[in-house]
Amino acid sequence: MKLKQLADTLKLELRGDGAAEISMPAPIEAGAPGTIVFAAGPRYAAALRATKASCAIVPESLAGDAPCATLISANPYADFARVLEVFFPPYRPPAGIDPSARIAPDAKLGAGASVGAGVSIAAGTVIGRNAVVHPNVTIYPNVRAGDDFVCHSGVSIREGVVIGNRVTILNGAVIGAEGFGFVEHQGALVRIPQVGTVIIEDDVEIGANTTIARATMGATLVRRGVKLDNLVHIGHNCEVGEYSRFAAQVGLAGSVKVGRWCQFGGQVGTADHAAIGDRVLAIGQTGIHNEVKSDTIIGGAPQVEFRKYRRYVAVLPRLPEMLRRIRAIEQQLELRRDASGGGNE
Amino acid sequence: MKLKQLADTLKLELRGDGAAEISMPAPIEAGAPGTIVFAAGPRYAAALRATKASCAIVPESLAGDAPCATLISANPYADFARVLEVFFPPYRPPAGIDPSARIAPDAKLGAGASVGAGVSIAAGTVIGRNAVVHPNVTIYPNVRAGDDFVCHSGVSIREGVVIGNRVTILNGAVIGAEGFGFVEHQGALVRIPQVGTVIIEDDVEIGANTTIARATMGATLVRRGVKLDNLVHIGHNCEVGEYSRFAAQVGLAGSVKVGRWCQFGGQVGTADHAAIGDRVLAIGQTGIHNEVKSDTIIGGAPQVEFRKYRRYVAVLPRLPEMLRRIRAIEQQLELRRDASGGGNE
Amino acid sequence: MKLKQLADTLKLELRGDGAAEISMPAPIEAGAPGTIVFAAGPRYAAALRATKASCAIVPESLAGDAPCATLISANPYADFARVLEVFFPPYRPPAGIDPSARIAPDAKLGAGASVGAGVSIAAGTVIGRNAVVHPNVTIYPNVRAGDDFVCHSGVSIREGVVIGNRVTILNGAVIGAEGFGFVEHQGALVRIPQVGTVIIEDDVEIGANTTIARATMGATLVRRGVKLDNLVHIGHNCEVGEYSRFAAQVGLAGSVKVGRWCQFGGQVGTADHAAIGDRVLAIGQTGIHNEVKSDTIIGGAPQVEFRKYRRYVAVLPRLPEMLRRIRAIEQQLELRRDASGGGNE
Repeated sequence: MKLKQLADTLKLELRGDGAAEISMPAPIEAGAPGTIVFAAGPRYAAALRATKASCAIVPESLAGDAPCATLISANPYADFARVLEVFFPPYRPPAGIDPSARIAPDAKLGAGASVGAGVSIAAGTVIGRNAVVHPNVTIYPNVRAGDDFVCHSGVSIREGVVIGNRVTILNGAVIGAEGFGFVEHQGALVRIPQVGTVIIEDDVEIGANTTIARATMGATLVRRGVKLDNLVHIGHNCEVGEYSRFAAQVGLAGSVKVGRWCQFGGQVGTADHAAIGDRVLAIGQTGIHNEVKSDTIIGGAPQVEFRKYRRYVAVLPRLPEMLRRIRAIEQQLELRRDASGGGNE
Repeated sequence: MKLKQLADTLKLELRGDGAAEISMPAPIEAGAPGTIVFAAGPRYAAALRATKASCAIVPESLAGDAPCATLISANPYADFARVLEVFFPPYRPPAGIDPSARIAPDAKLGAGASVGAGVSIAAGTVIGRNAVVHPNVTIYPNVRAGDDFVCHSGVSIREGVVIGNRVTILNGAVIGAEGFGFVEHQGALVRIPQVGTVIIEDDVEIGANTTIARATMGATLVRRGVKLDNLVHIGHNCEVGEYSRFAAQVGLAGSVKVGRWCQFGGQVGTADHAAIGDRVLAIGQTGIHNEVKSDTIIGGAPQVEFRKYRRYVAVLPRLPEMLRRIRAIEQQLELRRDASGGGNE
Repeated sequence: MKLKQLADTLKLELRGDGAAEISMPAPIEAGAPGTIVFAAGPRYAAALRATKASCAIVPESLAGDAPCATLISANPYADFARVLEVFFPPYRPPAGIDPSARIAPDAKLGAGASVGAGVSIAAGTVIGRNAVVHPNVTIYPNVRAGDDFVCHSGVSIREGVVIGNRVTILNGAVIGAEGFGFVEHQGALVRIPQVGTVIIEDDVEIGANTTIARATMGATLVRRGVKLDNLVHIGHNCEVGEYSRFAAQVGLAGSVKVGRWCQFGGQVGTADHAAIGDRVLAIGQTGIHNEVKSDTIIGGAPQVEFRKYRRYVAVLPRLPEMLRRIRAIEQQLELRRDASGGGNE
């Protein structure tokens, strides 16, 4: 592809030779002739100056550092993501219903749907336009999904779940299975029926083998733009705020509220009814026991401010030494007391 | 539904207007005219006195606090669970075998079975009465399952697994895949064949995408009434005692023994061969390294009594300060020693 | 089976009565007449001397301790594994393609393939000889797998994934779903297309419901002989070195490099870009924040040498006591200062 053509496609200002041939995007450290790379900010400047790529997507401030053609961008990483899509359009099976799919007579699929082999769609389900339902997906009755729904193989969506527009669910995820609620009764455990549902708003992505439990009553809420990685667990009656992101194996217990634009590292866990503000960053394996204020960075279990966490874990390995030093001081004081007659305390 | 009719269905004593119309159960804080709520004990008394619900399920001791009709119950929460089932009967597909299901000629299904699309049931498998096998389940050869088996979509049950009566397995769970056993041999790793099985007793519920490994020899045992949440891992040759409950993402390594009526919070993990008594409560993320006595509450890694855990984690963030104070004391003593000539130690 | 016949099958030296009938392998503590057991080293010597088994597989050094016939082995555990396979050959469905499987016309399967019900194999996929693809597996386009591929039910393999020879994937695993990469742009999150792939080399085993993310660019690499247990997550662009083993629920974030012959206990997690050497042993729940040298044993979060870890966690519960002792010392010094006039500091 000619660079000029790529610039036009991306609607970015081109500086340099528009006739250059671009054959592939590449990470900046692998930039070779014929590739296009990106530099997001000052810490990429040295790599940019050394690159052999034919073009770099850069902010105005780095334009002078590029030894090659440039595309000027307010957000080079986001525009590089668009380049990746131009060169590697995502796999999308053709529209049409595989004859082995079992779709209830009253289920409704919008125009342009692609439904794979072995898919089961039960009664009362309504899905919007341009859906891609990959093979061996099971959709229970009365599910509602919006437009541009992408549902990968092996996913299960339980009865009555509500899904917005432009939602992607990766393989093997389970949406709306019963929440974990039991009550002791006469020497046994009785299930609390989980009669609520799950509501997933627009622009959400859900990772492979992730599970989102349906609410006891009401709905488990996954707000607009939330991104969940693989093997995440969202307990019943949780609410995850807009654009929050959870890395793999994060687990929310029941009735947890997470604000907007949070980022949780892998394996973060929370107690029941934890309440987390907006823009909270939690490092991997953080254990959130109760409440977290907005705009904090946290770590440890129970969670503390990351600054505190970093300081105390640096001292942890010195605990045995600290104990020895306390003993030595005590001994010294005892000795001194002995030496001074011990009478003055 | 008239309240009188509901009281008769539940076989509970009604005090108040049996002609009242009940249209929905609700949490006590959302109780509105036409709803039925419950109050399990004294901590609900204030909410009960303020409720606008038409009926409350209460213990005798709270009957006087209700501003509405009451149903008198020895276990209000358990009876409320029954109300939920009356108003929201769980989804159950009709009996019958979907024509796309592939069932081996010699597999046996009891009366009333419902088998969904794309289900595969292999040779020698025997399932009791009233089974519901949802779409895209795979059952390997020679599985045995009792009556009232509910197996949700995407589940895999491996060869020879034995399942009791009234067992429910949520979507995507894997029962009886090979345990994790390898031995180094001539510069490579050789698999130890996992020739045992999994035995699941009556009244067990298994969460979505949970995995239970088959034993190396013998059986991995999940005892009567056990409840496992989503994404739990039970290693080979484990035994989980009656009515124990594990929240999401709990992991048992190999040959772990857990007693009865235990409750593990989310993300609890155990070492191989850990031995846990009865009625042990472990808070989320506890790391159990060895043995735990019955009737203890534990936390931390390695686990300690919760009381101890709570105290030491409260001090953790003060570690840097403690180290500074130790240094200050040492310095002071050094100074004093200097001041006093330093000769007396 | 006569013992002589078993010895010939295993090609091991027999000492004792070759006419003895062996009906079953057993753990050494369950050794009864008619069973064969193994003793791997000196710590099994007492159990060996007491066994009632008809035969024991032993190293030369233990031959004198056996009260029964022996098979002399350089690696008794590995040879016992072979005995297990002789007595319990693993389940393998017969060769042939189930009529309900949907295989793209241009997909290629080598000789001897067994393809189960509801399997979907998309265009351009090529699989070697003797493959077993169990029911309800979904293979996306252009996947390549070598000989002796065993793929259990419910697995999803995404477009373009490359798999070596003798690879086994347990039920529900997801290979090659999109890695977790988003960039903020104009008040929303834009997905970074994950245009790389996953490469799985020979002799790898992947556990049930485990997920391996495809690379952003390039490939996520799982090297020869790697063994992953259930519910493991491997992030995008990771590389796992030859013969490394991860127990259940281990999670690697993005771009992590793990060396050869490592062993990670359950629930170990790592930060992005962590770099772990060869032969590193990490105990369960270790949190790896950055770099780990080869040939170390580690624990804790952030990880430290296991020796250090063990020592400091032993002191942890004494933290409140240590704080009290520091306070007592300070008070004593204050008193002394008071007593001595307080003028000399």
